[in-house]
Amino acid sequence: SVNPDLGSERQTASFSVEKLTALLDGGAEQTRIRRAVVEAIESDPVFSRENQYFQTQNERYEAAVRKAVHLQKKMHEMGWTENGPEYKYIYRALSGDVAFLLHRVFMRSISVLGSDKQIAKWIPLATQHKLIGSYAQTELGHGTYLQGLETTAVFDTATQEFILNTPKISAMKWWPGDMGRSATHTVVFAQLYVHGKCYGIHPFIVQIRSLQDHSLCPGVTAGDIGPKMNFEHIDNGFLLLKNVRVPRENMLSKFCEVQPDGTYIRQGSQKINYFTMTTVRISLISDEVLTPLMKACTIAIRYSVVRRQSKLKPGEQEAKILDYQTQQEKLLPQLAAAYAFHFINDYLQELLNRGYREIQRKNFDMLPELHALSSGFKAVITQHCTAGVEICLRACGGHGYSLLSGLPSLYTKILASCIYEGENTVLLLQTARFLIKCFMAASAGQPVPPSVTYLAAVKHGKCPAKNKLDFLSPDIYTEAYQHVAVRLTSSVAAKLQDLIQSGVKKHDAWNQCTVQLVQAAKAHCHYIAVKNFAETVEKLETKAGIQKIMKHLCDLFALHGIFSNTGAFLHDGYTSAAQMDMVTASYLDLLAVIRKDAVPLVDAFDFTDKSLNSALGSFDGQVYQRLYEWALKSPTNQMSPAYERYLKPLLHNTLSKL
Amino acid sequence: SVNPDLGSERQTASFSVEKLTALLDGGAEQTRIRRAVVEAIESDPVFSRENQYFQTQNERYEAAVRKAVHLQKKMHEMGWTENGPEYKYIYRALSGDVAFLLHRVFMRSISVLGSDKQIAKWIPLATQHKLIGSYAQTELGHGTYLQGLETTAVFDTATQEFILNTPKISAMKWWPGDMGRSATHTVVFAQLYVHGKCYGIHPFIVQIRSLQDHSLCPGVTAGDIGPKMNFEHIDNGFLLLKNVRVPRENMLSKFCEVQPDGTYIRQGSQKINYFTMTTVRISLISDEVLTPLMKACTIAIRYSVVRRQSKLKPGEQEAKILDYQTQQEKLLPQLAAAYAFHFINDYLQELLNRGYREIQRKNFDMLPELHALSSGFKAVITQHCTAGVEICLRACGGHGYSLLSGLPSLYTKILASCIYEGENTVLLLQTARFLIKCFMAASAGQPVPPSVTYLAAVKHGKCPAKNKLDFLSPDIYTEAYQHVAVRLTSSVAAKLQDLIQSGVKKHDAWNQCTVQLVQAAKAHCHYIAVKNFAETVEKLETKAGIQKIMKHLCDLFALHGIFSNTGAFLHDGYTSAAQMDMVTASYLDLLAVIRKDAVPLVDAFDFTDKSLNSALGSFDGQVYQRLYEWALKSPTNQMSPAYERYLKPLLHNTLSKL
Repeated sequence: SVNPDLGSERQTASFSVEKLTALLDGGAEQTRIRRAVVEAIESDPVFSRENQYFQTQNERYEAAVRKAVHLQKKMHEMGWTENGPEYKYIYRALSGDVAFLLHRVFMRSISVLGSDKQIAKWIPLATQHKLIGSYAQTELGHGTYLQGLETTAVFDTATQEFILNTPKISAMKWWPGDMGRSATHTVVFAQLYVHGKCYGIHPFIVQIRSLQDHSLCPGVTAGDIGPKMNFEHIDNGFLLLKNVRVPRENMLSKFCEVQPDGTYIRQGSQKINYFTMTTVRISLISDEVLTPLMKACTIAIRYSVVRRQSKLKPGEQEAKILDYQTQQEKLLPQLAAAYAFHFINDYLQELLNRGYREIQRKNFDMLPELHALSSGFKAVITQHCTAGVEICLRACGGHGYSLLSGLPSLYTKILASCIYEGENTVLLLQTARFLIKCFMAASAGQPVPPSVTYLAAVKHGKCPAKNKLDFLSPDIYTEAYQHVAVRLTSSVAAKLQDLIQSGVKKHDAWNQCTVQLVQAAKAHCHYIAVKNFAETVEKLETKAGIQKIMKHLCDLFALHGIFSNTGAFLHDGYTSAAQMDMVTASYLDLLAVIRKDAVPLVDAFDFTDKSLNSALGSFDGQVYQRLYEWALKSPTNQMSPAYERYLKPLLHNTLSKL
Repeated sequence: SVNPDLGSERQTASFSVEKLTALLDGGAEQTRIRRAVVEAIESDPVFSRENQYFQTQNERYEAAVRKAVHLQKKMHEMGWTENGPEYKYIYRALSGDVAFLLHRVFMRSISVLGSDKQIAKWIPLATQHKLIGSYAQTELGHGTYLQGLETTAVFDTATQEFILNTPKISAMKWWPGDMGRSATHTVVFAQLYVHGKCYGIHPFIVQIRSLQDHSLCPGVTAGDIGPKMNFEHIDNGFLLLKNVRVPRENMLSKFCEVQPDGTYIRQGSQKINYFTMTTVRISLISDEVLTPLMKACTIAIRYSVVRRQSKLKPGEQEAKILDYQTQQEKLLPQLAAAYAFHFINDYLQELLNRGYREIQRKNFDMLPELHALSSGFKAVITQHCTAGVEICLRACGGHGYSLLSGLPSLYTKILASCIYEGENTVLLLQTARFLIKCFMAASAGQPVPPSVTYLAAVKHGKCPAKNKLDFLSPDIYTEAYQHVAVRLTSSVAAKLQDLIQSGVKKHDAWNQCTVQLVQAAKAHCHYIAVKNFAETVEKLETKAGIQKIMKHLCDLFALHGIFSNTGAFLHDGYTSAAQMDMVTASYLDLLAVIRKDAVPLVDAFDFTDKSLNSALGSFDGQVYQRLYEWALKSPTNQMSPAYERYLKPLLHNTLSKL
């Protein structure tokens, strides 16, 4: 039975939840396929996450391996294939709680970096799980800056082998998933040396564990790096190599080869490599970043209409906490952001597909823009969504802090997305570098990629809004965002030039501008996100109330961004103080409007109770019953030796009648 | 041996680290006492936290009980008493990793709320640990709003007993520390009913477990609420009561008493109760909030001079990451905030002492101001420091994400401080209510408490700064903060009045202003913090370089606040865009200045390696060696059954020679 405080929220939905779900899925047929996958996975007890919050790291690892092995069987059973329409829903249905994800990266790296012969040899072995692969790039002392890696691979002409070493402790491979306990093979990135000359970083297939008994191979030291903030199910590992020899054929050689006599040959274009990084950054947005934020919003918003606290009006019963303006101001902007980023993800996917088609035709022109957008949005979205999940957690008070709410795990996992696949500050500076370059080109009248043509058209006007309703016009707010992005880019470009002209060395000047460069990159992405949301809303069909509610969310996303960052808009007077007061008024009005549809808006994300795994967020809103039932299952409710050992002696020591 | 990259940072300190440590401690003698306590605790293996990051919740609980019991012995041994000068350093030296903290709250509540007779009976029993106490206020469905509690205590004249019940699942007591597994007694807050009439919330001493065998008492259901984001060492519990009877004498009756015939008598002033809440909020700032931020800064800053990544200048070795402006911009403002809040804590402590002296003289005039300041600063400091610890964690990249860095535990623990002892938004609204009241009074020419007299003196001038150096003048920036606080308070006060005058009901009008009321409360606290820091610096002795470096930190704290919140200062033109550019320039200049002293500034916090418990933050900076050694101790490096169960069958199933 549904908690009436939650049920009543669904009766007044201004739009069709089912239609919105279909829109998010990309069509009703996709919804059907997704639900079938979810049903198949969730009805299978092997995939259960029921006791997850009570498990140790060891138990989590074992469960993830069990699920990964079972998944192979399940896919076969269900007729699911890696290229089928179901595939993308499987990982989501498992909530990522599965091993061997790096095995896939191992395979992809061979496909991308290996020669045809290498692909023909290794891919079938990997596909049939005759080995378990990992991917060993990051070192204890080296991450983002690949040229700094210290692992070496020295070619020995006599034996036609590479000799691999991690010569210092900082050279130890550190972090690779599946490597701590599972992997038998890995792709090791190492500095290639031939005849004493260094040729830079290259990938080598290295066997690390026996296929017979899983013991470590000679010269190999490997293990697990221990506890992390999350990812207990993954055996992130370390790897030390001491004179480990691999045959010449194990260097992945699509682009570079060492011939038997030691001659080094570079072949083909490596530009495609950048494309791989771009693909990875865009692909993580949906599963690793948007889904957690959508789950957090679902949990926090459902809880906020069930939880009642204090009286809003004297004499009435305690109010639903979502009726407080401050609670709306915490949660509803996160909801709007989830939708905004869902649509920007669509935009990036489309751009990526277009880029891929161009690359197939040997046209690499789109790469810089794709790299800049994928870097910038990876950083902005992971940052924004991580903050959003934390806000949701805190908005649920004490119960949000219990692992049983599901929110702590969502937070500790999404947080990692700010760090992996490119640290966010480093990525934003890459976007900024592109912006500065394009700004300079545009200023000189040269052509620039489509997403940055606006940089050329610097307008010195003022925001034309005359009353608070004008700020519900996408033209008004999109233009304001554009203005800020141009201003921040042009002003930091000017600072950079001034510094250089005043004699500061180029790299020092760059460093002295980086705080402002990051601001410019963020403003660029924020502008694109607002513009894209507005354009998406424009194109939606007007029936079933979908366009109207999406328009409200778009307005909220845009105005929340201005309200939270007023200085950027006020700085040069583009927006006046009076206009900023209008923004505030419209923004606060919108909160009350969207609050009415808050529950239907999270229902549309269509998470099952099992996928939320939250005592606070279930569809029926029976929060307190579930918290209590789950708590009773905790191992902390078993007898502790602490009583016999410490409490009893303490109490009995001085026991007297009370 | 100290890592030379860290060692070199200490050679150029512009001030005496030892003198700064003494300043933070409140004198060299305090430093000596603190170090003696730390030494005694850390040299005792029972108090070791060595394997903490590998332990389960059950193991953490047992260790905390062991430490709590051992601490009694230790205190006796060392001659430490609860009133001695060492006492305040013990909890810090244990990093809070100890049980029976609620036993102390149990005792305090009896001392404050109990009659002399009750104190005489229970306090000796508690002191000698003839019982273990807890404090049961919060319910599954009720937190902040005490009037909403559902537990009942019905007086039975016939037996002279109170009959306690938790009539619904939402009435179940939930969260009390030490109650899940340890406590034998607890103070239960319940709605008192006599002859069918409800007299509101009152405290009752209830025995919940047998003193003989620790079994639950008749009618009592209790246990542990399960896993949380942190506090694994604490057995936060639940409690269901079904017709549990306690004698009439068990209602704590300093202020209210039920006589044998059921007559209800209220006696004395309850104002002192507010003072207790104030004391709790202020006392948590130092141990639970500032110490974690200081530890996080120590870890992140030491790591940032040891970690090298990418080249800042072509041809040179990879740069220390603290040399990047973006890294400085992440960490150094947190360092400045740690100092700013340390000094505001001194200010609040002094205010509290003064308030206490006045109350002793039956003068309660200071209570509203004390309540407003303690509420506001509890919220602002916990919020700011939680965000600061998260920034430190993320600034350490992947290694920050490892539990071994110590940063995840600091974060997950400090986060709770935003929720407990008053949820932050609720507290800020209490401060705002005080501000509005005082603003109205001041506008009407009535006297107001000292901290808000500035509200009366609204000035409509402009910021007089003419160049970036002017923004290093405390008068300039303090005035700017004051201006913003007045503007935000007066504008939301005006909005509130407008709404009410336009016919909106008072409570609705208040709700519609709460987002802006929160802003005003924060601005007020921020202003007081900046002003207090500036005044503190003014009074410091000029020798040993202390005043100079503190002045830099004060400037950084102030300018970072303006830089991060430019809109508030630009809004009405008090600060012009040109002046804001000066702020930015001065702010960025300061980062480079303070960066030089960053390591000495965290060394001055004087944390031992054991208290930091961080592979990244140790005094010697041997980061990589320690990460590796610690990882080897992880239980995840023991044999997993997953190999025999899943991996071996998978691999051997299809095994062939590779």
